[in-house]
Amino acid sequence: MRKVTLAKNAGFCFGVKRAVDEAIKTQREYNKKIYTLGPLIHNNDVVNYLEDNDIYAIDINDIENLNSGDVILIRSHGVSKEVFDLLTDKGLIVINATCPFVTNIQKKVNKFSNEGYKIVILGDKNHPEVIGINGWCNNEAIVTKDGKIIEDLPNKVCVVSQTTEKEENWNITINNLNNKVSELKQFNTICAATEERQSSVLELSKTVDFMIIVGGKNSSNTTKLYEIAKENCKNTIHIENAKELPQSLIDDSSINTIGVTAGASTPDWIIKEVIEVMEGK
Amino acid sequence: MRKVTLAKNAGFCFGVKRAVDEAIKTQREYNKKIYTLGPLIHNNDVVNYLEDNDIYAIDINDIENLNSGDVILIRSHGVSKEVFDLLTDKGLIVINATCPFVTNIQKKVNKFSNEGYKIVILGDKNHPEVIGINGWCNNEAIVTKDGKIIEDLPNKVCVVSQTTEKEENWNITINNLNNKVSELKQFNTICAATEERQSSVLELSKTVDFMIIVGGKNSSNTTKLYEIAKENCKNTIHIENAKELPQSLIDDSSINTIGVTAGASTPDWIIKEVIEVMEGK
Repeated sequence: MRKVTLAKNAGFCFGVKRAVDEAIKTQREYNKKIYTLGPLIHNNDVVNYLEDNDIYAIDINDIENLNSGDVILIRSHGVSKEVFDLLTDKGLIVINATCPFVTNIQKKVNKFSNEGYKIVILGDKNHPEVIGINGWCNNEAIVTKDGKIIEDLPNKVCVVSQTTEKEENWNITINNLNNKVSELKQFNTICAATEERQSSVLELSKTVDFMIIVGGKNSSNTTKLYEIAKENCKNTIHIENAKELPQSLIDDSSINTIGVTAGASTPDWIIKEVIEVMEGK
Repeated sequence: MRKVTLAKNAGFCFGVKRAVDEAIKTQREYNKKIYTLGPLIHNNDVVNYLEDNDIYAIDINDIENLNSGDVILIRSHGVSKEVFDLLTDKGLIVINATCPFVTNIQKKVNKFSNEGYKIVILGDKNHPEVIGINGWCNNEAIVTKDGKIIEDLPNKVCVVSQTTEKEENWNITINNLNNKVSELKQFNTICAATEERQSSVLELSKTVDFMIIVGGKNSSNTTKLYEIAKENCKNTIHIENAKELPQSLIDDSSINTIGVTAGASTPDWIIKEVIEVMEGK
């Protein structure tokens, strides 16, 4: 009998749930088409669901086609101050669904860059959250993906992290900065939800034959869950939904124990479907 | 002509607004009397308003009088794991309106105490937020109100802060711990809203003849705003609402510039009333 175990703390995090709820609530309130700047979350199934509910993801370049009074929602990743001003200057109704944990980082970065600190961000320089944060310190932050910093640093440095970073990378960053900087303000802004999901997957992946990580292929936090699981369970795959489960895996009777987890942008219904398929239901 | 200026970032913070909204929403949803464990926020006018809406603050000792199926809401300060379990074990419907920033601290403390770190909390040991956080590490944290730590410390220490602490106290705490501890995990969990309110009042209090700080007398963050203002403007008073404004102050024509700010638990309508009275409206 095959046993499928769902990791504790899998799926939607606080910030993502809030942004999705806010989008649905806003659409109902205004009772017209509303827009989100970029896909609300990194999950195609959810994007389709939202479109069915008159909520459309658009690109920053599409802003010029909107009219004063149109409603635009800022997703949980947040945006730079520049983008925020652009939207309000155009007369759009801006609903700010930035995750409060991300807003917190933006405020820290803004405050300390104004006080003359050089900002270091641990994270992926191409991720919207990091681009947004950098936009609150004149796009002058040093972004490091692994804690290695080759740039010259002034004496005063303030370091923050993308919310979905790995603790390990944070520790490397702090060690490196401590050796180079005399006045270091450090804000470990990895959010607790990320840590919990990572600890849970670490634990579970040590005990199963096979690990399935569910989440968008572009999702930063899902990719990290995959990396952690893969270290402990070589049979680990990353899928977006149940349709991507290989038939050979579904049929493989030598696999007795399966662990499942999901990134912050994966809704419960997709996780449930994956579990049911693997349980042969 | 008297000029009354409201500080930027005065009044309700994200966590408090969310808890009040949640209480009202929950009462409507269940359409019966609901309870909050302790006053939802430190403001008597708001407490009265909530009672008019069938939302009643009760004490932990009153729990025994509740019945399975009764609805209880945990306020933004959060509670210990023990209290949380007590409520659910009794069959109550528990609505958790703990501020997500506080939940984050509770999770950090729980994780690192499980990993063998001694927890240090910068904050007021009698404040519900601190009592709650301490309850996630077996009530074994060292609580320091000013960063001075006389207790012996092990090598591994994890330090967090009450969300409404002063930056200055955090810096003292870190300096002291850095001298005593070889492996320090530090999470500066002072929330950005607190910092912003504090910076704004600092700035404003330097430029006015008189400062009025509005907020509950028991409110930790309001008291800190008072202290900061008082340092820069010796004519500073702390009131709960417009009724407490001294008539002599209202009538004093020698006071030309007045600054106003308010703590995280002061609703807009109270701030507005204070400004109107002082403007002679």
